[in-house]
Amino acid sequence: MANSPTGDSVADRLIRVLATFTPTRTVQTASEIGRRAQLPRSTAHRFIGELVTAGLLERDEDKRIRVGMRLWELATRSSQALRLRQAAMPSMERVQQRIREHTQLAIEEQGTALFLERLSAPDSGANVTRVAGRLPLHASSSGLVLLAFGDRDLQESILAGPLPAVSAETITDPAVLRRKLAEVRQLGHAVAPGYVEGVSTGVAVPIRDETGTVIAALSMVLRREMPVGDALVELHRAAKEIETALGAPRG
Amino acid sequence: MANSPTGDSVADRLIRVLATFTPTRTVQTASEIGRRAQLPRSTAHRFIGELVTAGLLERDEDKRIRVGMRLWELATRSSQALRLRQAAMPSMERVQQRIREHTQLAIEEQGTALFLERLSAPDSGANVTRVAGRLPLHASSSGLVLLAFGDRDLQESILAGPLPAVSAETITDPAVLRRKLAEVRQLGHAVAPGYVEGVSTGVAVPIRDETGTVIAALSMVLRREMPVGDALVELHRAAKEIETALGAPRG
Repeated sequence: MANSPTGDSVADRLIRVLATFTPTRTVQTASEIGRRAQLPRSTAHRFIGELVTAGLLERDEDKRIRVGMRLWELATRSSQALRLRQAAMPSMERVQQRIREHTQLAIEEQGTALFLERLSAPDSGANVTRVAGRLPLHASSSGLVLLAFGDRDLQESILAGPLPAVSAETITDPAVLRRKLAEVRQLGHAVAPGYVEGVSTGVAVPIRDETGTVIAALSMVLRREMPVGDALVELHRAAKEIETALGAPRG
Repeated sequence: MANSPTGDSVADRLIRVLATFTPTRTVQTASEIGRRAQLPRSTAHRFIGELVTAGLLERDEDKRIRVGMRLWELATRSSQALRLRQAAMPSMERVQQRIREHTQLAIEEQGTALFLERLSAPDSGANVTRVAGRLPLHASSSGLVLLAFGDRDLQESILAGPLPAVSAETITDPAVLRRKLAEVRQLGHAVAPGYVEGVSTGVAVPIRDETGTVIAALSMVLRREMPVGDALVELHRAAKEIETALGAPRG
């Protein structure tokens, strides 16, 4: 059904169209979308027209296209992202009020850390993380937690490389990363000084479901000169609260 | 392209599939989705299979289907919902900390109020609103603001009815609603005592873009017995801050 001569499914085509929109490219012309999605011109225009008619994309007065509110609504209202995020929000707000630096919630998705939420005070330090943005597992503190407590297969696939440097201090040596993951498991949290940006330290703790499986990471991005102890105490406390809110047995 | 014998486009079919998922029905079998989306059995299974392969839907160990994180990510990262919400969050958190009741952000979408964000304290009162949920324009305080400052066409279409009662106190008489909208425009805010739930009062103010057009409503749900004055002062202040964050000229 609905396969093109080149054999890609409509779902593939939809992903290729949606993937042309990014946090910094929120509006495009139909021609730009078609070119970036590598669709034939007439196919692109017809498909985009259908998506606009259905409300999944929206066309503004200048005929430029953006992702539709209807798609956001349908993708959000029943999503695991929303459930996790709603369970975490009260605790995240408390952490953020006490430490006054960026507080974030991430999951592992297709071998990267996908960020579901980020709270920031107006005077918080530098932070490259965005809601619905991603960071490599080996570089971010959230990613190190998700990797350290993740599947063995996932660990080996990441350790097999490549391990690109996000900053000058990102761990890029598999042997060093293996020792770091063992340290994270032993400590029960990850500290990532300068791994993403030289000016900041990421700290992260795991959030577990009722079976003990780590399903998310709660993290803060601190200024490099800040001590990490207070943030870790708050994060561990918040993780316990979130686990309780999600229905995990205490302790 | 990709039209079925009954003439619906793949975009329509995708919406029908996604619309079977709701905040209270987050996992379904492929057969349930097909039945609820009114798709022929073989069509449903093939289409759902494609969506799962592409990561737009996910299949769990019990072969039940849920909306995929990949779809949430693609629908969120470039969306207007995220942009508005990120601009509003710091001010919403401040309002919520001061008044300690539910604080919400909504836009008008297809003739209803669509909620982009909701912050709540653990001890906040009753509230039926959900993130990515909707309420009728004539019943909610957010909806009354969006309607009062919205297009004349939208107003007339809502005033033409039907005006269903959400609670015993919802305005269901078009003449009363017309007077209420004039009052909202005159006061610059909406107060909706008991219109959605008998135990609470909604209060809402408009958020304008740089051209002065109202693009969103900022609201609180207060316990019915609470005075509304403090909340309105905080909401008006927060709306100004959000307009500045969005790049609107001050004043």
